[in-house]
Amino acid sequence: MSKSYTIAVAGATGAVGTKIVELLNGANLPIKEVKALASKRSVGKTIPFKDTTIVVEELTAEAFTGVDIAIFSAGGSLSEKFAPEAVKRGAVVIDNTSHYRMDENVPLVVPEVNPESLRDHQGIIANPNCSTIQMMVALEPIRQAFGLEKIVVSTYQAVSGAGAQGIAELENQVKAYSEGTPLKELKAEVLPSAGDKKHYPIAFNALPQIDVFGEDGYTLEEWKMINETKKIMSDDTIKVAATCVRIPVVSGHSESIYIEVEKETNVKALQELLANAPGVVLQDDPSQQLYPQAINSIDDKATFVGRIRRDLDNPKGFHLWVVSDNLLKGAAWNSIQIAEKMHALKLL
Amino acid sequence: MSKSYTIAVAGATGAVGTKIVELLNGANLPIKEVKALASKRSVGKTIPFKDTTIVVEELTAEAFTGVDIAIFSAGGSLSEKFAPEAVKRGAVVIDNTSHYRMDENVPLVVPEVNPESLRDHQGIIANPNCSTIQMMVALEPIRQAFGLEKIVVSTYQAVSGAGAQGIAELENQVKAYSEGTPLKELKAEVLPSAGDKKHYPIAFNALPQIDVFGEDGYTLEEWKMINETKKIMSDDTIKVAATCVRIPVVSGHSESIYIEVEKETNVKALQELLANAPGVVLQDDPSQQLYPQAINSIDDKATFVGRIRRDLDNPKGFHLWVVSDNLLKGAAWNSIQIAEKMHALKLL
Repeated sequence: MSKSYTIAVAGATGAVGTKIVELLNGANLPIKEVKALASKRSVGKTIPFKDTTIVVEELTAEAFTGVDIAIFSAGGSLSEKFAPEAVKRGAVVIDNTSHYRMDENVPLVVPEVNPESLRDHQGIIANPNCSTIQMMVALEPIRQAFGLEKIVVSTYQAVSGAGAQGIAELENQVKAYSEGTPLKELKAEVLPSAGDKKHYPIAFNALPQIDVFGEDGYTLEEWKMINETKKIMSDDTIKVAATCVRIPVVSGHSESIYIEVEKETNVKALQELLANAPGVVLQDDPSQQLYPQAINSIDDKATFVGRIRRDLDNPKGFHLWVVSDNLLKGAAWNSIQIAEKMHALKLL
Repeated sequence: MSKSYTIAVAGATGAVGTKIVELLNGANLPIKEVKALASKRSVGKTIPFKDTTIVVEELTAEAFTGVDIAIFSAGGSLSEKFAPEAVKRGAVVIDNTSHYRMDENVPLVVPEVNPESLRDHQGIIANPNCSTIQMMVALEPIRQAFGLEKIVVSTYQAVSGAGAQGIAELENQVKAYSEGTPLKELKAEVLPSAGDKKHYPIAFNALPQIDVFGEDGYTLEEWKMINETKKIMSDDTIKVAATCVRIPVVSGHSESIYIEVEKETNVKALQELLANAPGVVLQDDPSQQLYPQAINSIDDKATFVGRIRRDLDNPKGFHLWVVSDNLLKGAAWNSIQIAEKMHALKLL
């Protein structure tokens, strides 16, 4: 009889955690038990799972006793505190926060791109940033076929990337506006970044700040896209330039990506390549006004790619428009895929 | 005694026309009379102007008799039909539509950038596309000082660019969502392009289509940014790559612009240059979370620039975030400035 797993979800009541429990339902994994862990104030809540319900337990070190796979989505400081405790108790950790991503002992994995790096794990595997994952799914097939010299990306990111409180903030603001509150009087307490000093309305606005500011005038979100791309593609020479922007969308990140490839190619070849690439759905027909849209990506596991065009001045320059549900492929679904792949590779 | 002008506004009841009449109020022009012209169904409506009201008259060829300056913002086909009639009757036409922009006999003018080309006019002057204008105001000082090799721009454009019906569509959709209509059931009849076959919700979405599709998979809005930039800057060698996207913002276009300059420079030099550039307001201080925002640009004539950063891989590559009220600098205000400049240059 093959092994079946006890899986703990840390942060099970959050925007991503909820999706993880939902997706475990249909996962390609033998599951013995799912444990839902969260902070004290959520203890006792129930979460539906298959034909039963799971009662939320407190996130403590001891809660990981007997756990085979621990999926963390409760914030970086809780991953820092509890992931080593889970590993100590024999679990493999799949961490959705940014905490361990650039740690050289931690594989950073998009299963369509670099599954083999899972073999190097030392107990913790990191799930990349949402905006990075969908870009990797779209660009890795191109890199393999034609080489990748440079990426210039501008993002159009949804508020669910800031969690349930981000969604509530946008919804409260549009409701207030619909009821007559002037734009400049909308109240903001969360965005652009819950941990930063100032907060600005996201409704009817575009905020060129995601996460806090770091070195050289770049935000941490922009640094994530730059550094994680190089790590996932195992190539420090790829040039990445990123501008990350929050827009008033509930879920579904969109990205305007300009690339320069190494070998000449054409739009048709790129379309054919991506139409057959793992995890990609090509939606690219201007004559039918067919292109990826954030609202159509919701609840779908795919990364949608369209508006592929050649740069008018550079035969090696191309544009793509890439959209995916940031809570699924950008977070929960990628984590589940990591667990499935580890099972398939007999790494559990 | 100096001359004073009779000014006609064609399309006076539209989103831009309304702003033009408002701005004429404080314009640096001797005004004898303002005539408000519109389609039959608006005839008889009144528009406040200074301490009086203007009664809307029908837009006909004869209505331009005695008019010195005719500002058109009633759609391309009406400009095509009536602009020559206005010129025939002695008026100088300032056209806000795309109809005459690429006509080699028509100057395409951003007064901060190429005012001298007004001297070549043959009766009609074209006002550039909204998304082009604000980019020109931000980039021309850089081009003058350091040369401009390449522009890669991704836009975040407001619905007011599609007129009053675009604003109404967004407002109706967010109201319906606030009252419980699911995202995927929101009704769309205008966007992405009133003249195209299919319509998609803009609320909580990002639509990578503005205007209809043209050659090579580019939309006409993207072609406008590419071709108008070369004409306004009088330089066919500047490489321009554009992706134009509509987002759920009422007014205020934002642009993520990546440039490559010809001579090496640095962020501080660019900040100082733009802080003193005509029409520009620099808002660039990450330590204070200070950067341009669409909602703060509304009703302001300036072009706001911030988030200036050096490309990590290219000492001649820089990022900028450029925001302006598309109904003002992007349309009505630029038209008024053209009239003012023609008066100052004694071209009227």
